[in-house]
Amino acid sequence: GGGKIDREVALEDIDNVEEVGNRTEKGDQDAKAHVDLHASDLVASRGGQEEIEGVEEEADDAYDKEDVVPLGHAFGSWVEDLGLLHRADSISEYNLYVKMAKEDGVVVVRNGDSEVSLPPISAGTEYNTKELADDNLTDDHPKVPGWFSEYCPIWPGQAHFLKVEKILFQGRSEYQSMMVFQSSAYGKVFILDGALQLTEKDEFAYQEMITHLPLCSIPNPNKVLLIGGGDGGILREISRHSSVQHIDICEIDTMLVDVYKKYFPSVAVGYEDPRVTLHVKDGSAFLKSVPEGTYDAIIVDAFDPIRPDHELHKTPFFELVAKALRPGGVMCIQAESIWFRSLDIEQLMVKCRPIFKGSVRYAWTIVPAYPSGVIGFLLCSTEGPLVDFRNPVNPIDPNNSYGVAKEPLKFYNTEVHMAAFCLPSFAKKVNNGSKMNGVGTLAADEAKHK
Amino acid sequence: GGGKIDREVALEDIDNVEEVGNRTEKGDQDAKAHVDLHASDLVASRGGQEEIEGVEEEADDAYDKEDVVPLGHAFGSWVEDLGLLHRADSISEYNLYVKMAKEDGVVVVRNGDSEVSLPPISAGTEYNTKELADDNLTDDHPKVPGWFSEYCPIWPGQAHFLKVEKILFQGRSEYQSMMVFQSSAYGKVFILDGALQLTEKDEFAYQEMITHLPLCSIPNPNKVLLIGGGDGGILREISRHSSVQHIDICEIDTMLVDVYKKYFPSVAVGYEDPRVTLHVKDGSAFLKSVPEGTYDAIIVDAFDPIRPDHELHKTPFFELVAKALRPGGVMCIQAESIWFRSLDIEQLMVKCRPIFKGSVRYAWTIVPAYPSGVIGFLLCSTEGPLVDFRNPVNPIDPNNSYGVAKEPLKFYNTEVHMAAFCLPSFAKKVNNGSKMNGVGTLAADEAKHK
Repeated sequence: GGGKIDREVALEDIDNVEEVGNRTEKGDQDAKAHVDLHASDLVASRGGQEEIEGVEEEADDAYDKEDVVPLGHAFGSWVEDLGLLHRADSISEYNLYVKMAKEDGVVVVRNGDSEVSLPPISAGTEYNTKELADDNLTDDHPKVPGWFSEYCPIWPGQAHFLKVEKILFQGRSEYQSMMVFQSSAYGKVFILDGALQLTEKDEFAYQEMITHLPLCSIPNPNKVLLIGGGDGGILREISRHSSVQHIDICEIDTMLVDVYKKYFPSVAVGYEDPRVTLHVKDGSAFLKSVPEGTYDAIIVDAFDPIRPDHELHKTPFFELVAKALRPGGVMCIQAESIWFRSLDIEQLMVKCRPIFKGSVRYAWTIVPAYPSGVIGFLLCSTEGPLVDFRNPVNPIDPNNSYGVAKEPLKFYNTEVHMAAFCLPSFAKKVNNGSKMNGVGTLAADEAKHK
Repeated sequence: GGGKIDREVALEDIDNVEEVGNRTEKGDQDAKAHVDLHASDLVASRGGQEEIEGVEEEADDAYDKEDVVPLGHAFGSWVEDLGLLHRADSISEYNLYVKMAKEDGVVVVRNGDSEVSLPPISAGTEYNTKELADDNLTDDHPKVPGWFSEYCPIWPGQAHFLKVEKILFQGRSEYQSMMVFQSSAYGKVFILDGALQLTEKDEFAYQEMITHLPLCSIPNPNKVLLIGGGDGGILREISRHSSVQHIDICEIDTMLVDVYKKYFPSVAVGYEDPRVTLHVKDGSAFLKSVPEGTYDAIIVDAFDPIRPDHELHKTPFFELVAKALRPGGVMCIQAESIWFRSLDIEQLMVKCRPIFKGSVRYAWTIVPAYPSGVIGFLLCSTEGPLVDFRNPVNPIDPNNSYGVAKEPLKFYNTEVHMAAFCLPSFAKKVNNGSKMNGVGTLAADEAKHK
């Protein structure tokens, strides 16, 4: 990637590690190597402010040699090095640093004085996918060998199954578990902690809409910040805007970036834009470090903003976003499906109005691989020049080929932009009543500012 | 229902009957009763023009007593009579008329001299749903006990699973197999030949859009024909239009109507409109009997028009529809999802242009329970007064409560109508090139006629 790397890793305590699992080539021989690691055994742990020797400085070079590396991350990189695939289940909750070495394809996990060898498996080994989603299993989570199932916790009682042709990658970073598989229906698919993130077949719908809805709503966007979105697809879309001069991306998980670069080059192509700077940081922490009024647009593709237990509701995240925007600047954040009535979009919008003080709107698009086939966006602008999200002032040429994207737009166009704000009556009705206040009102926001 | 019944049953030959299967209460005791029936054994068969004594005259009364009745239909009605559920697999392809009697909940199938008793099972028995979709099973069709899976044959490699709380009905008519179950996620669900037709939770999206897209595009619709749509939901939506004076519905399967009336009263409420006349006929046969220029609008909810092997492509179905419409009359037919690129929407539109000679447009809506979460509509108008489908001339009050519907509109509104014609770039692009010609062109059709 062409982006500069501003690496800063958040550190946490380690208690213990339950196991390091692996699989043999046949998949049915479950030769798990149990490794009882404790923080005290590790070469380097992450307790408190403790720094890990050799990690920060060596960054991307660390994986080419025997050294102290983050285990999860190393696993991802070793796939590239060896053409092999290794599993390290149940590790992601701990930030592990152990000595590792490769010896003829065998991964050796060194743990103080003891050492455990894990026989490798080839990339593409046929897993019994029943076990792939173990982390997310509940009694209600159906399983079928050879198929990946995404269970929708906010709309229980349904699951979407994708047939797995080949598992291409499976590993854990310091933050989350990842899987890439070749599906029959959607091309390559990326799974994060058991949830489908992106498929080759339909990623463009989400990426184009979350990007161009905000960027086409303001004239000449110049500085843009992306929080999350480590796959690079939104960077690719921002890249189409010739007015943009600076693109910051704040993504905490570098392993995710690496895996996308390896398996989804047409998505991660966004990193090739020389205007991009990658900041490896927590989003809130990064926002705190940003001078007030820096950005014309901030796109947030980091988490679901609506689930009531999310940290978003505990921290002043939106205040930080609003502060980092210039007057009349815009934010777009993923905001779930209109079909998920249990989620309180209204509460989110009510919360955002006094913070952003400009327009607050809800839009949506179709993405067939996502639960319900639909996903929504919350769009907010700060006090300042009026932003009328429904009527874009900065249209983009449908054959646009500016920047690093190799293909013209596949989904977004001005018509689709305007249609994205047209809500079914059940959503408008809720809006006009006590619930979902503000969703889909045709003119309320704009009128307020005219 | 309040509709008049113009009953005319299409008759076919019987060769033989393979089996009558049933299940015990526990579901795991597969006590199938094999009945070798041959046409010659039956009390009444359907060979050629042969009429079945007692069937036509007694119609709805036939099931209250021991009599000669169509087997599949009888099974459906017996559920109501006995509160019991019976299965008669593999019969639907034959039009069976046998003597049946109820004896303390036991169904007796009389077949000439021989007689087979089928032990009943209670409604709500927990089936092993692995076996529910047996008819549609392929090697690629995943199964999970306790879950219903819809496999999408035109987008293989994916399946949507719904958790089954209780099976409420299962049976076969002369034409198709039916199942109603209580789902955790979507309320009651109706399955036809293994394919999800309708759910309580989201049926309104489909029913409202397929109805109001055509009816709001012309001023004062008066006579409307519905082909298929036996569930009654489209009737309910047509009923909202006060200008409509005659509603004909042509539905060949009366058992389907009965099952909907029993389990989906808020959908089948459409039959209570006194303007409705039910014609139990094949759609093409009915159209042939209709005087030229009879209808202002024809809605077709009978089959998928795009699959190349469908009879639609063998018979002059669209010609019959066009002929039955007045000049400037409109047709709306279900036309699959824009995500199913393998389907040739272009071919369908190219075929329709010379037949209808007016506008030919493609629109879509979201329905989360359907494959891809989206379904499309083909809208055509005949030569005559211009129909600009994108800009409705006959808006409907969002709080409309005219007719038999108990609730106001939940999905359709004028904004959503107009947005339904806005297509993602990948569809427009295909359209502007050699494929999907005409899909989504903003002004082409209208311009042609201005």
